[in-house]
Amino acid sequence: MTRINGRRLIADLRRLAEFGKAGTGVNRVSFSGADIESRVWLRERFQAAGLDAAIDAVGNVRGVSAQAARAVVIGSHTDTVPMGGWLDGAMGVLYGLEIARSRIESGRQGQLGVDVVSFQDEEGTFLPCLGSRSFCGELTQADIAKPKSQAGEPLVEALRRAAYGGPAWRLDKGRHIAYLEAHIEQGPRLEAAKRRIGVVTGIVGIRRFRIIAKGQADHAGTTPMSMRKDAARPLFTFAYRVHADLPAMVGPDTVWNIGVITVRPGAANVVASEAELVVEFRDTSSEVLERIEARLLAWISELDSQGPARLEAHPIARIAPTLMAPDLEALIEAGAAENGTATLRMPSGAGHDAMVLGHHLPSAMLFIPSIGGRSHDVAEDSAEDDIVLGCEVLAAVVERLEARAA
Amino acid sequence: MTRINGRRLIADLRRLAEFGKAGTGVNRVSFSGADIESRVWLRERFQAAGLDAAIDAVGNVRGVSAQAARAVVIGSHTDTVPMGGWLDGAMGVLYGLEIARSRIESGRQGQLGVDVVSFQDEEGTFLPCLGSRSFCGELTQADIAKPKSQAGEPLVEALRRAAYGGPAWRLDKGRHIAYLEAHIEQGPRLEAAKRRIGVVTGIVGIRRFRIIAKGQADHAGTTPMSMRKDAARPLFTFAYRVHADLPAMVGPDTVWNIGVITVRPGAANVVASEAELVVEFRDTSSEVLERIEARLLAWISELDSQGPARLEAHPIARIAPTLMAPDLEALIEAGAAENGTATLRMPSGAGHDAMVLGHHLPSAMLFIPSIGGRSHDVAEDSAEDDIVLGCEVLAAVVERLEARAA
Repeated sequence: MTRINGRRLIADLRRLAEFGKAGTGVNRVSFSGADIESRVWLRERFQAAGLDAAIDAVGNVRGVSAQAARAVVIGSHTDTVPMGGWLDGAMGVLYGLEIARSRIESGRQGQLGVDVVSFQDEEGTFLPCLGSRSFCGELTQADIAKPKSQAGEPLVEALRRAAYGGPAWRLDKGRHIAYLEAHIEQGPRLEAAKRRIGVVTGIVGIRRFRIIAKGQADHAGTTPMSMRKDAARPLFTFAYRVHADLPAMVGPDTVWNIGVITVRPGAANVVASEAELVVEFRDTSSEVLERIEARLLAWISELDSQGPARLEAHPIARIAPTLMAPDLEALIEAGAAENGTATLRMPSGAGHDAMVLGHHLPSAMLFIPSIGGRSHDVAEDSAEDDIVLGCEVLAAVVERLEARAA
Repeated sequence: MTRINGRRLIADLRRLAEFGKAGTGVNRVSFSGADIESRVWLRERFQAAGLDAAIDAVGNVRGVSAQAARAVVIGSHTDTVPMGGWLDGAMGVLYGLEIARSRIESGRQGQLGVDVVSFQDEEGTFLPCLGSRSFCGELTQADIAKPKSQAGEPLVEALRRAAYGGPAWRLDKGRHIAYLEAHIEQGPRLEAAKRRIGVVTGIVGIRRFRIIAKGQADHAGTTPMSMRKDAARPLFTFAYRVHADLPAMVGPDTVWNIGVITVRPGAANVVASEAELVVEFRDTSSEVLERIEARLLAWISELDSQGPARLEAHPIARIAPTLMAPDLEALIEAGAAENGTATLRMPSGAGHDAMVLGHHLPSAMLFIPSIGGRSHDVAEDSAEDDIVLGCEVLAAVVERLEARAA
């Protein structure tokens, strides 16, 4: 059994958090100075562990187990959102490093290698999942030519500035047998269920619609109710129905949100001439997403035909769900049992690099609890014991994969 | 029967609209250069008509029928909202001038005089209904000391700049027997009903509440529905209920509006931590207003106790209804019949100087149709025939008052 070194893992995580340190958190958006420096440090750490380390054409840092003919890819990302947390993607990358290093130290890398990776720009400062999409061969030159950061810098300029060049590291189906990504949960479920290991069943698909209503501005004192074309009123009806009626037709883990609504002109004594809201819903089942979409669009059509305001629904995001590999889920559960801890099966409500990898390679994700469910914030944290336990479970998964490959 | 001169009335209205002319509309906010100049012109017009004319301490322009011991007050205001219409209050003031002038010309002012007035700042550039409140003795020095315009000028500074001084013209209960105000409807009802004269039954009371909900911001992908404290959701329920359930418990002319809603932080993928909306409702019946308020507050209390978000209702406006004098309403209907036109009884959904006067003197208002219901906009207009007819009807009301006083 591979013994990982928990203290070394924590020390590496603390050292990585120095790059872009911001109080208890980290400000290390992709292609920032802190991000560029941290990748050099990471490459050196991979090298020191005995891996064949390099930074590739888009800035992916990879450490390859050169002696092995077949390998499992373990990783995540080390870029953060602005003023983010110290664990987020970093933990999954350093789990890969610690497991690869421990296996090399114990002479166990021959059967099955561990290729470690920090994918570039998962958070989308320039292009969400840039690194994992490049790894999976999903990006064309045109895809790279377009994106700019919010500050206006083109991605190609950032790549030039960071001096990344040479070949892109690519998925090799003759070599790579699986992708494993560990991550903090970024939600409250493990903590509430008092479980220390989450087994991700899939990464949810997301559909998002902008609902626009057009009516007519009128004096709210002098215009009788029957003569108004209030644009806000049908949106209130719609929003009420979404929350009241969806529970009866969705899955146990479906989530939805109406977090944006705007009413114009926006005065207490003026009937709304225009109103819009954004509704989104997420599930790992495409069939559930289809059913919700059909119902929402039927409501919009019904409210539009009732008048007097006109309603339209515009799709603004449509991300397909990614299912994790059931056999790998079972290996995580076995690895957790071996370490004496129970698991919780759950979807990932947020996106991850595994969302990209899962369409190309059998993939699995393991969650550890987020304290208070916090993430994408300097307050993000997890218990050190949980961080170490997650790595031990993942190391056990690699052993089981090795046994299966033998 | 007093014959008013319709062509002279229209000519005066067109001349007054030159002060602050802005395309088809007028930009003549109180204490602007255009407003100050227009009051000097108005005083001269009153003087030329044979009235005892002056501009008083707050800028009210009054023309008193000096030969009469008793008088009816006819007026409105000549200030406008920014980029307003040419008729709004101006029409009611010039009706007073035309009726007083015609009665003086035909030697009929002895029995019952007409005191004409343009009240200062009805639109509230500094203080809503400043002039009529001063006339009714409702203002203290402290009331005048506080207000500033949106541009930051104190009212006392504007009064100094305009060089208004001397005594305030005051309501004299030994002299003044009634207040008559004519106005454009500012709504679509007369046009829709094909009636040319509206008889105002009362000026609506207004109650306005800010409803504030407090919840907790959470990731809308990773937080299960059952663990959210969504601040927006109960406001959607509230807004839906307001529109769905109020019709069964209000009067035929009650109006209500939700024209303001804000959700924070306002992102599609973040559960709302805070949300607020403004709901207002108007009616001429205090009992109806009480009933609505009790129901809305009960809903808020119910939603608050259901949780998980907390709700509060904060009153932000409470204006009592003002009923018009029923005997004067009957005189307008008789005056309209005498001129061969049918009337429509209706509340005024907007505020007017009669809202202040009505608490001190028997008061009545007459509406003429607004084309397309438009007002407070340069597009505001009415048919010249309707403008002249309204003045003829009001002149007939004065004759009937005179007959009654005799």
